[in-house]
Parts: sequence; C-alpha cells; structure tokens
Amino acid sequence: MTRLEKYLPALIWLKSYSKADMRTDTVASLIATILLIPQSMGYALLAGLPAVVGLYAGIVPSILYSLFGTSRTLAVGPVAITSMMTATVAMPFALPGSENYAAIAIMLAFLSGVFLVLMSLLKMGFLSNLLSHPVISGFISASAILIAVGQFKHFIGVEATGNNLIEQAQSMMLDIESISLPTAILSVLSIAAILLLKRYLTPALIRCRLPLHLAELFGKAGPVLVVIVSTACVAFFSLDQMGISIVGHVASHLPTIDMTGMNLDTMIALLPGAFLISVVGFVGSVSVAQSFAAKRKEDINPNQELVGLGLANLGAALSASFPVTGGFSRSVVNVSAGAKTPMTGILTALFMLLTLLFFTPLFYYLPKAVLAVSITISILQLVDFNDFLRLYRFSKKEAFALLATFLAVLLVSMETGIILGVTLSLLFFLWHTSHPHIAVVGRLPGTQNFRNVKRFDVETDPQIITVRIDENLFFANARVLEDYILSLVSQHKDIEHLILMCTAINMIDASALDSLETIDERLQSAGITLHLSEIKGPVMDKLIKSSFMEQLSGSIFLTQHQAMETLSRQQSSE
Amino acid sequence: MTRLEKYLPALIWLKSYSKADMRTDTVASLIATILLIPQSMGYALLAGLPAVVGLYAGIVPSILYSLFGTSRTLAVGPVAITSMMTATVAMPFALPGSENYAAIAIMLAFLSGVFLVLMSLLKMGFLSNLLSHPVISGFISASAILIAVGQFKHFIGVEATGNNLIEQAQSMMLDIESISLPTAILSVLSIAAILLLKRYLTPALIRCRLPLHLAELFGKAGPVLVVIVSTACVAFFSLDQMGISIVGHVASHLPTIDMTGMNLDTMIALLPGAFLISVVGFVGSVSVAQSFAAKRKEDINPNQELVGLGLANLGAALSASFPVTGGFSRSVVNVSAGAKTPMTGILTALFMLLTLLFFTPLFYYLPKAVLAVSITISILQLVDFNDFLRLYRFSKKEAFALLATFLAVLLVSMETGIILGVTLSLLFFLWHTSHPHIAVVGRLPGTQNFRNVKRFDVETDPQIITVRIDENLFFANARVLEDYILSLVSQHKDIEHLILMCTAINMIDASALDSLETIDERLQSAGITLHLSEIKGPVMDKLIKSSFMEQLSGSIFLTQHQAMETLSRQQSSE
Repeated sequence: MTRLEKYLPALIWLKSYSKADMRTDTVASLIATILLIPQSMGYALLAGLPAVVGLYAGIVPSILYSLFGTSRTLAVGPVAITSMMTATVAMPFALPGSENYAAIAIMLAFLSGVFLVLMSLLKMGFLSNLLSHPVISGFISASAILIAVGQFKHFIGVEATGNNLIEQAQSMMLDIESISLPTAILSVLSIAAILLLKRYLTPALIRCRLPLHLAELFGKAGPVLVVIVSTACVAFFSLDQMGISIVGHVASHLPTIDMTGMNLDTMIALLPGAFLISVVGFVGSVSVAQSFAAKRKEDINPNQELVGLGLANLGAALSASFPVTGGFSRSVVNVSAGAKTPMTGILTALFMLLTLLFFTPLFYYLPKAVLAVSITISILQLVDFNDFLRLYRFSKKEAFALLATFLAVLLVSMETGIILGVTLSLLFFLWHTSHPHIAVVGRLPGTQNFRNVKRFDVETDPQIITVRIDENLFFANARVLEDYILSLVSQHKDIEHLILMCTAINMIDASALDSLETIDERLQSAGITLHLSEIKGPVMDKLIKSSFMEQLSGSIFLTQHQAMETLSRQQSSE
Repeated sequence: MTRLEKYLPALIWLKSYSKADMRTDTVASLIATILLIPQSMGYALLAGLPAVVGLYAGIVPSILYSLFGTSRTLAVGPVAITSMMTATVAMPFALPGSENYAAIAIMLAFLSGVFLVLMSLLKMGFLSNLLSHPVISGFISASAILIAVGQFKHFIGVEATGNNLIEQAQSMMLDIESISLPTAILSVLSIAAILLLKRYLTPALIRCRLPLHLAELFGKAGPVLVVIVSTACVAFFSLDQMGISIVGHVASHLPTIDMTGMNLDTMIALLPGAFLISVVGFVGSVSVAQSFAAKRKEDINPNQELVGLGLANLGAALSASFPVTGGFSRSVVNVSAGAKTPMTGILTALFMLLTLLFFTPLFYYLPKAVLAVSITISILQLVDFNDFLRLYRFSKKEAFALLATFLAVLLVSMETGIILGVTLSLLFFLWHTSHPHIAVVGRLPGTQNFRNVKRFDVETDPQIITVRIDENLFFANARVLEDYILSLVSQHKDIEHLILMCTAINMIDASALDSLETIDERLQSAGITLHLSEIKGPVMDKLIKSSFMEQLSGSIFLTQHQAMETLSRQQSSE
C-alpha cells in the first residue's frame, strides 16, 4: 500500500475495477436508491428538516466516503440516531422549519466533520472507546423510544417539541385538539401493511420461485410499496384536503446554503452537541463497517474511518444538509443488492441526484405520516430491554450504568445521559483498579512457581515476604499498595526483606513511583530492605529514567526464584 | 481488636495508658501549644478570618481526631493549603471580616466533614486517589505561590483580594498608595530574624550543650521568638499608632455561631469547593500520617481516617472555625516535643482553650505582618520546580499535566486547576490503556514458554496463531483488540485457529465481552475458530456468568502449552 493509497483508499479498489464490477454495481445502486429514498426523507423529517434535505444528505457525503473510507460495503448517509441527535441539539436554538434551523443543522454537520478530522489528526479516536457497552446500550434504547414518541405526533397529525419524554408528552397534550382522524387511520393502515409485508413478503416471493437472496432483498421493499400506494391514494382521493399532511412541493434544484442566521456564540454553544454526534456516529459506523469487513476478511482502519466520515460530514455541510454517518440498514440494503465496491456509494449518489433534479414531483402527495410510521417501526427494533437483564447477571455495576444512562436520556437529555453514563463507567473502572488484587505469595514446594499463600499450600519464610499486585501500578491504586505493604509490615514484626513481584505490572506512572519511593523509605526506617522481581521491559525502561533505582535499598531480580535463592542464602550465611 | 475499638481507636491506646505517659505527653503538649499558637493564628488570617479563629480550630477538632483517628502522632488543626482553599472558596460569597464570611467558613468545615464521613460510609475514599502526583505537585506549588503573594499585602500593609495571581496583583496595585513604611520595615526585619534563627538557633543551642533533640525542637521556636519580641516592641513603642496593623482585642470567650447569613442556595454553591477541600485535606493528612506510622511500624486505616478527619471538621464547624486537617509541621512539632500518644492532641487542645480564656490580652499588640512573614517563609518551601524537571525526564505527558495544573491554579482558579489536572491524568491513563501492548507469540524451542515473535526466535504455525494482550480488557481498549485481531486475520489468510492468551487480563467488563463475542462471530464467519488460554480465576468467574461460553466456537485451555499441543494434534490428524 503506497502512502497515497493510505490516504485515498479508493485508489486500491479502482486499480482492479472492471466493466463487470460496473454492471453489478449499477444494478445494486439503482435498487439501493429506490429503497433508500423514503428512508432518507423520513430521517430528514426526524431531524426536523424538510424531507428533501434527506436526499441532499445522500449525495456528496456518500461520494466522499466512497473515496476516503476504508470499508468496501459501508453506506454513509442520514441515520436514525444522528438524525434524532441533530433535532435534539438544534431544537433549543431555532424553530424546526425556519431558515435558522436549517443553518444550525448545516453547522452541526460542519462541526462534526471538523471534530472527526481533528480526532484523526490528533490520534484521539480512542476517545470514542469511552462509550462503553452500558452507555451505548442505554443510549440507543432510550433514543429509539424518544424517536418513536417524537414520531407519534405525525401519526395523529399534531405538533410537539421537547428534549425529553416529559416535554414531548406535555407539548403533544397541548396540541391534542388538532388531532386528525384521517391521518390516524392512514397511520394504522400503514403500520398493519408494513408489519404484514415484513412478515409475508419474503416467503411469498420465495413461493414465486424468486432466488433466496433476491427474495430477501425485495422483502425489504415493504415500506417502499406502502409509500407508493399511500402516495397514489392521497393523490387520487385528494386526502390532503382532509387534513393529511403531505411532503408537498420540493424545489428540484441543488441545495442553497443560507448561513445569515449563524453567529459565533451559537457556534460555540453547538460544540458539545456536535462532538457527541460525531463520536456516537463514529462508534456506530465503525462497528457496522467491522461486522461487514470481517465476513470478507477485509481490514478497517479506524483512523482513516475518522477521515472518511469527517469529510462526509463536511460534504453534508457544503450540500446544505445535516450530520451523516455509516448506517446498518443502509449498508444491508447495499450488500443484499449485490454491491461489490464503494462505487455503489458513488452511483447511488448520482441516482439520488437525478431523483432530486427530475423526480421530486412524484413525492408531492407522499404523506408524512407514512414516512414516520416506516421509520418508527424500524427504530423500535433497537429497544433492547433484555440487554439490561443479561448485563445485570454479568455485572450489577454496569447494569446500573446502563439504567442510569437510559433514564437520563429519556427523562433529562441526551447529553446528560451520555455524560452520566461515561462518568459512571469511568468511576466503576477506577473503583475496580483502585481495589487491586494483592497477594502474599510463597513457593510451591519443589518448583520455581510462586502462588498466593491463601489458596495454595506454599513454603514461606518469616523474614522474607513476597507481595504480588495483580494490576497496573498508577495513581488510582498506588497508595493502596502503600497502605497494604505498610499495614502488612506492622503486623509481621520479623520481616527483614520484602520482595515486590511485578509480573502483572504493565505500566507505572509518577504517582506509583512516588509510592514505591515512599514504601522504600518507610521500610528502610523500619529496618526492612525492599527488592523487586520479575519487572517487565517497558516498566524497567521507565524505572531507569527515575531516581528510584539509586534510592532502592535492595536489589532488582530478574525472576522471583532468583530473588528467593539469593536472599535465603544471605540469610543463612549471616 | 474489638468492633468498638475499630470505630473508636482511642480505646486501644487508652488501655495501656500510664502515669509516665501522661507526664511526657503533658510536657510535649505544653511545648506544642506555644509553638502552634502563632501558626494557628496566621492560618486563620490566611483563611481570611480573625486570628483568634485559628485558636478555636485547634481545640474541638484536635480532641475528636485524637479519639477517632488511627494515627498516634498526627496533629489535626488549621493547615496552610486548606486555609488558603477556604479563603479562595469563601471570597466570592462574602467580604473577609464580615459575619457572612465567618458563616461561610463554618459551613465549609461542616460540608467537608459531611463529605469525609460520607466517603467513609460509601467506601469512596478511593476517589482521593484521583489526585495523581502531577496534580498534587502542581497544585501545591501554585498554591504556595498564591499564598505567598496573598500574604505580601500584609508585609506592606495594603488591601488585596482575588482568586488568582492576576486578580491579586491588580487588586494590590489599586491600594498601593496606602502602603505603610513602618510595616514594611518590620516585615523585612522579621524575615531576616526568622531566616537567621532558622539557620543558627539549633547550632547555637548545641554549642550551649543542649541535647540534640531538644536543640532541634527549640530551634523551631525562631518564629515564636520573633512574635514575642515584635509584640513587645509594638507595645512598648506604640508602633500600632504608626500604621502597623495588630491583632487587637480578642474576645476571651468561647466561640459563638451565627448562621443567619446562610441559605440553601449558598450551601449548594459551596459544595464543589467543600468537596475539594475535604479530598485535598484527606490526601495530605493520610500521607503525613503514613510517613510517621511507618517509622514506628504502626498501621493507618485510611477508611477510619476519613471518619476521624470528618468528625474533626464537624467539630470545627461546631466551634465556629474553619476546615482543618492533619498537618506535617504540626505533627513534627508534636513528635519532636516527645509526644507518645494521641493524648497530646487532647492536652494541646486543653492548653489552647486555657490560652483562649485567659491569655488573649497577650496577643493584643501582635503585628499581623509578623504572622504573615512566618507563614510565608514556611509555605514557600513547598514550591518545588525541580519536581517538574524530574517528572519531565520520567514522562512528558505527566509533566504536561503538572504544568497545566500549576498554571491553571495560578492564573485561573484552584478548582479549574484540579479539575484540569485530574481530567488530563485520566485521559493520559486512558490513552495508555487504550493503546495496549498486543503481541503475536510463539513457542521458545524446547520449552513450554511462549514469547513475542518480534523479540524472540520462536516456533510458530501458519494455521494456529496466538495473540497475547498485556492489559486488562475493558471498554477503553476492547475495540482495539477487535481491530487488531480482525486486521491480523485479514493479513494472514491461512489461519484456522486463533488462540487468545489471557495471562495479563485481571478484569473484563461487558464492553470487552461484546468485543470477544464480536471477534468470535467474525472469525466464525471467516471460518476461523477462537480459543482462549491461561484465563485467571476471577475473569473465568465473570465469563461463566455470560452467554459467551455457549457461543464460543473453540475451547478454553488451562495453559497455552495445552492449547498448542491439542490444536497441533488435531491439525495433523485431519
């Protein structure tokens, strides 16, 4: 792989790109475009933007990711979670539908892009690891419920806004009198239709002797069918006159960017939200990319993914849309449609562009309720209460972190939930490492192996005690070792030598070094010599850089066996 | 040790308390009281309170700690760092000298006490470990400079307030015209006298054939001599008429508590500051206690220390003073005066009470400038720039954390500095653990030992690859292992078995379990079997509680050697 190929991974697959590839990719992207159009429009509505913006978001970002991303199958565009996050972050700043609101969505895409590229340049991708399993699980379940509740207003044609469940519900109750019965009936019918098609379409297609993979692919077309049928019905029977909200006139031109409403203060206020959108989007996207790559033994480079997704978001900002990321359902559609290379992403973008330029009149009568229904059905599958129970069996602390994140996202806000969850995860981890397992060890008779005196029947020496700490030695637990050893020494008045066995220490920091120095000093003033054994290479390199080695009262032994041999011999010769 | 003795450690030493002990303790505490009086008054001024409050703070807290603390030598009372923190936290809420200000100091002592006791009950003492070496070092150096600068106004008799260096300097410049020449002269003379006495008093006493330990003890009396002489001079020459600020009339009665100025909002606003005071005080106190205990092979129980210090602070609140903690210089005075048991703390408190009731007129002419000078000289010894250089050689990242804490405390505020330092320490630690050392290992020929293929000349098998991760497996690095293994597999197309060697894994969380499941699934879909070897007991206990064991495509081997033997045999029999 050349340097250029590293930064522009498209060069790798373009080298061997054939006409045959082009043919399958073209068919795949045509199918994908049709399936993705209603989904993209739905996510735009979810983000509080006009439906057409969902199409904008499917063009430039998709092309940029195809060129700069490392996954061959990931499809980048609007996705449920980031769309909802966009709405949550933007809502306090402007009214959905206003030009200011559109400017804020664009700014969020821009800032997310900047964060992702910056994280790549500063090698800070590891920050996304802070989103632990409990945080992600609690966040996604709560978000899915919030989205479903948020979409419910479209089901019955009322207005509602709010950052959490309570605000949403209150706001909906205020507008409950404007409920539209025809909309509600249409929603119920669409729910029934989508659920039935989901269940019976694929089996029916199989019975029609369609090959399995095609049956599965077209089985996903249920929502598209419902969209087409309902649009036709609305148009034919003029149902929009009866209060059913429709997508309406869509400007069939390229997006225009109007940032007049933006100022520096708003930009700064958007930073935390944009950061969370970028990190959550990145984590989701990389895990989707990994799951497809592994099946094909392909390699995903997380750092280059930051670049790909970052550029995609900058592209989203330039095309006047909103934050995008790699999505699971988008990618599944791509893969089952037979996509071979990232060229599908580029072709899908071109078909999306053609749609935008020539076919938007087709969406005029598309009822918003049907878009909302199809999104809600797919998003509710993400709610996973079983995960809490599984986690509860595995670790009560982590289950608590999940529950706290879930409730905070649902009842307070997305940011509060994530920050609370990450803080709890960190605290539990720190609690764990600051209560390290420390054992006094002795020799298994007749061997060179040393084991915990409490678990094994081992040989010990009252004057030479060996302590093993089963954890890295750093600020969170350094003083614990100090306490342990000083307490041990106060209980065993005969000790002359204390050996610290360092088998499990992979890192050591300045606080731990302090503790080692303190331990050594205090043991010295009590007439005890401190020795170290079994130090790992990187830890030894660190120790050499410090003054601890000159201060150390005892010796450093390569192995614990050597330490015991040497000290016992000294002991008996005295 | 009985249960009662655990909660009231005084019972242990009281059991064997003798008349002889009483005699030495009485002498020790008499000397200690005399040495501590000017120091305590100085710290009260430092905290922005009347000098007499320093005496209050030396009575009840000292008695409570003597009864409930576990150290036999620690002296609890006002201390430089916590006094300065009190001033910093209280200043934004009230004018020093006002009744509201006194109420806020009392509330801070009360809240600190509550935090300490709560931390003990909830076993949250480990939180204090977050104050890593760089944070403490940067914080103390910056605080010492702030204190010195803050005291400088007393040297020249001007007024100044402010939370950081810049504010302090600006405020001092505003009042520069009220500078008092006599005060400045007195300060210069006291500085010279204290420094000279510090250097020559002990040697002079030794030449007078005083025993060494007494010479060293009375060598510390320099500041007390200067206080006595300067007080006498001010009284005799009526220097207070010439603009030298004096302590003045001190009400010789017990403290009264006036909390009328306090409300719930202020209390809540004080919480973060009180929390920092309690944690910083606790860390300082325990390390002093440990250093004395080790010399005597005594045992300090950090959790009981939280109780002792917590009750001491509640006692400080009840006696209308301000936050206290265990101090190094206080304890040194105690120890060199010959203190044998915590009874010294109780006796010192009683002598302090007698002073308060009968001898306060003696302090009437005590010049504030001399108190400020003696505190400043002792506090400036805490500034340690060399520590930055030492740390820089050891770890650039940690040196950066120290510098950031130092500058933030100096230029922004104490809280910002500590929060910034702790955050940086955590990030660096997370960065480290999220870049774990991962190695492919092979067998050292002729042994059962497995080592890194990059460092040793080892035997490997193209179809069986073993990966060892040298770190705990948890959310911060779980996905790194995932990336590593999936990337490894994409580069080695022949692999049939992958063994994960778990020697260094001491803990595993739900995120890591996710990653293991993902790795297993993705290896399975690539036709590779995943095995685990050398799992530690506690980790195995966790795995059994999860569904991973049922899902795992391969086996779990007790040792890596067994794993290789079994899989190679399978391989060759196929």
